[in-house]
Amino acid sequence: MARPTPLSGFPEWLPEGRLVEQHVLDTLRRTFELHGFAGIETRAVEPLDQLLRKGETSKEVYVLRRLQEDADAEEQDPGRRLGLHFDLTVPFARYVLENAGHLAFPFRRYQVQKVWRGERPQDGRFREFAQADIDVVGAGALPYHYEVELPLVMADALGALRAIGVPPVRILVNNRKVAEGFYRGLGLTDVDAVLRAIDKLDKVGPEAVAALLVAEAGATPEQAQACLGLAEVRGDDAGVVDRVRALAAEHGATTELLEEGLAELGALVAAAAERAPGVVVADLRIARGLDYYTGSVYETVLVGHEELGSICSGGRYDTLASDGATTYPGVGLSIGVSRLVSRLLGAGLVRATRSVPTAVLVAVTSEERRGRSDAVAAALRARGVPVEVAPSAAKFGKQIRHADRRGIPYVWFVGDDDGAPGQDQVKDIRSGEQVPADTATWTPPAEDLWPRVVPVDAG
Amino acid sequence: MARPTPLSGFPEWLPEGRLVEQHVLDTLRRTFELHGFAGIETRAVEPLDQLLRKGETSKEVYVLRRLQEDADAEEQDPGRRLGLHFDLTVPFARYVLENAGHLAFPFRRYQVQKVWRGERPQDGRFREFAQADIDVVGAGALPYHYEVELPLVMADALGALRAIGVPPVRILVNNRKVAEGFYRGLGLTDVDAVLRAIDKLDKVGPEAVAALLVAEAGATPEQAQACLGLAEVRGDDAGVVDRVRALAAEHGATTELLEEGLAELGALVAAAAERAPGVVVADLRIARGLDYYTGSVYETVLVGHEELGSICSGGRYDTLASDGATTYPGVGLSIGVSRLVSRLLGAGLVRATRSVPTAVLVAVTSEERRGRSDAVAAALRARGVPVEVAPSAAKFGKQIRHADRRGIPYVWFVGDDDGAPGQDQVKDIRSGEQVPADTATWTPPAEDLWPRVVPVDAG
Repeated sequence: MARPTPLSGFPEWLPEGRLVEQHVLDTLRRTFELHGFAGIETRAVEPLDQLLRKGETSKEVYVLRRLQEDADAEEQDPGRRLGLHFDLTVPFARYVLENAGHLAFPFRRYQVQKVWRGERPQDGRFREFAQADIDVVGAGALPYHYEVELPLVMADALGALRAIGVPPVRILVNNRKVAEGFYRGLGLTDVDAVLRAIDKLDKVGPEAVAALLVAEAGATPEQAQACLGLAEVRGDDAGVVDRVRALAAEHGATTELLEEGLAELGALVAAAAERAPGVVVADLRIARGLDYYTGSVYETVLVGHEELGSICSGGRYDTLASDGATTYPGVGLSIGVSRLVSRLLGAGLVRATRSVPTAVLVAVTSEERRGRSDAVAAALRARGVPVEVAPSAAKFGKQIRHADRRGIPYVWFVGDDDGAPGQDQVKDIRSGEQVPADTATWTPPAEDLWPRVVPVDAG
Repeated sequence: MARPTPLSGFPEWLPEGRLVEQHVLDTLRRTFELHGFAGIETRAVEPLDQLLRKGETSKEVYVLRRLQEDADAEEQDPGRRLGLHFDLTVPFARYVLENAGHLAFPFRRYQVQKVWRGERPQDGRFREFAQADIDVVGAGALPYHYEVELPLVMADALGALRAIGVPPVRILVNNRKVAEGFYRGLGLTDVDAVLRAIDKLDKVGPEAVAALLVAEAGATPEQAQACLGLAEVRGDDAGVVDRVRALAAEHGATTELLEEGLAELGALVAAAAERAPGVVVADLRIARGLDYYTGSVYETVLVGHEELGSICSGGRYDTLASDGATTYPGVGLSIGVSRLVSRLLGAGLVRATRSVPTAVLVAVTSEERRGRSDAVAAALRARGVPVEVAPSAAKFGKQIRHADRRGIPYVWFVGDDDGAPGQDQVKDIRSGEQVPADTATWTPPAEDLWPRVVPVDAG
């Protein structure tokens, strides 16, 4: 077999990169669990007809077929064909319906899994990637306060990553009710057309968007300017609400829906200012997702890496799932773990202190005495120290180089006698210091016990 | 959407079951890391031609197609078509070749991921399931001692699960060199035909196997009896080697290859008797895998659940991978995590002490005062206590039932004043005991802090 080459869009990491990813995943999991979210996993596949319920995602789906399956069978019942899930929301909604009788609502769950999308790969956009989702889903009703709580859980989770060198994040929030209430108050009824135009603001600029609003959303130039005015409102305090309210009054666009949305947005900004100062920013130009979310929407940028796009998005669905009898509203966010980790590694922000878990390499004096080295390793492991035994009874210099190449900080030399304590020695191969050591008592310093994930510019 | 039903062969767990699975995965990971194995993940897909290199697995492969892809494209270059991996060995071999320049050999890795096989689902046999693999791979050479070490790492990993109620395991070992050396010594040259016949022993019994050996492996009745004699040898000490040697001498079947294999098998049994007494058993009737492994082979049964089949299998490959210039031999084992966990849950052997991470539910007195409850929750979380806040300011009895339904052991009541310490109270809802508590000092007992995974017959 010739040396294989990577598949574009299917990222893989070397062991050191995986250590970084694993640390990110462990940190997220711990934060989610501290907030009382229960972990679940769902299967990778869903019936194709379920995946295609939102028509616009159909192009992204990978369809499965068993190699030996009759090719015609594929064209048969789309309810029996399977595809790989492209997010964790569709499977979670199905899981909630399937298991509703066994779950206690409101149900708080986190879910960390790979998802697949057959998109053209780009920087930060993959065909296979890991997501870390949290959602709260209610049976029948779900109070607004969860729309305040969930982005703050993510602020907590992403904030916990600051210690390893992850840049600060900014969570941008908007609210469907504010946008729709304002547009309807202006007299614009094709809300989705307005949102599609506003969504292009970053790409084409305000003049082109104004033209689009006139051409495609049926706006007058004055209405278009009002929409652009709303999109300019941004801030992390109650002033945001005042400005929108003033703008609405100016254009006679005040509605009940707008006021309801402003009350929600105001509550979110106020709570965030107290619990995660500087992280949450109301940004009324956020339009992505407003077509399917029904309340709050969230987008998250890494400060200094805004061009990467959102690394954590979500919102409120009034109908996450429904079985006819019961409707399940939900609110949730999803971290793009692969996008985040690929940037951390690619931009050289974060590193692991070594590429293997091993803290101690036990040297082997001769193959006949390998059992002595195995026994030392077992004794240290029993005390929680990660250890491996040298692959061969080579010269000690070569065994030390074996450790050095992997970043293993300590090499243990087994004494000549049959194991009396104090005859063994351990060498810190960084300093060269070698001291007598006993497997029953010796422990490496805490910072050497396991590989640590640290900012590149720190120790 | 009507209530969906499970897909046969694609297991999913309720949150409590997932807690059990997560605990199993965490325990395996910790053990692997204590033994110096570095974690990696590989993408879920491989080029179809790589997956089909072993022809006999072709029927199991799920092939991928993008929904919008030209249907004809599928019939084109099989090197560009993708399938889901059916094990973690094929992707690992490819990863080693692809990254050889960045890895240090011998390379020790663990890998825990889902795999997919389009097989007919049965008890313990799934279409999607999790595997936990360890392998050591060398560049050019790999000493035999790794064939001793790796099953003992698995014995350690599976032994660490005894604490939660996993039954003891028995690791059955055989060696290709012993089998092949013996058969060739007898004069039987179609070794694979002999192995195929011996593999049917459990199903059809010795008489039918003897007939098969005569009909399909070209054996005389005497040679067939000698093969059956070898298959009867089983034991956990050096006596095994003596018995095989005596049997070979009796039939004039002694060969150099046999002696080499017996030296290896003897070393494995001897080391195992010392380091994991009673776990490893040499069993010369094990034939599965001997057609592709080149040295040791391993199968593992749960004691009392032998009919479940092997939960941890593997062996030695002289050529795990090769790029023409370098050959990479490897030895490894794979735990069928889903098979194990589904038995633990299905047979009611193991349970979690609660279904959510939450140790404390902070009650809410009124929606206006929710911020006070949020602050209590944040203070407890900062000290490592998993906490959630009640969904609504319902009557306290209802809030306590909310905790009770989830197994949350404590409910926290926020004092009436503006937060002076000592005004808050915490209730253990199992005993009903309620005491004053301060967020800066109160901690639940260690056994209540996180959900624990325990044997069903224990607390």
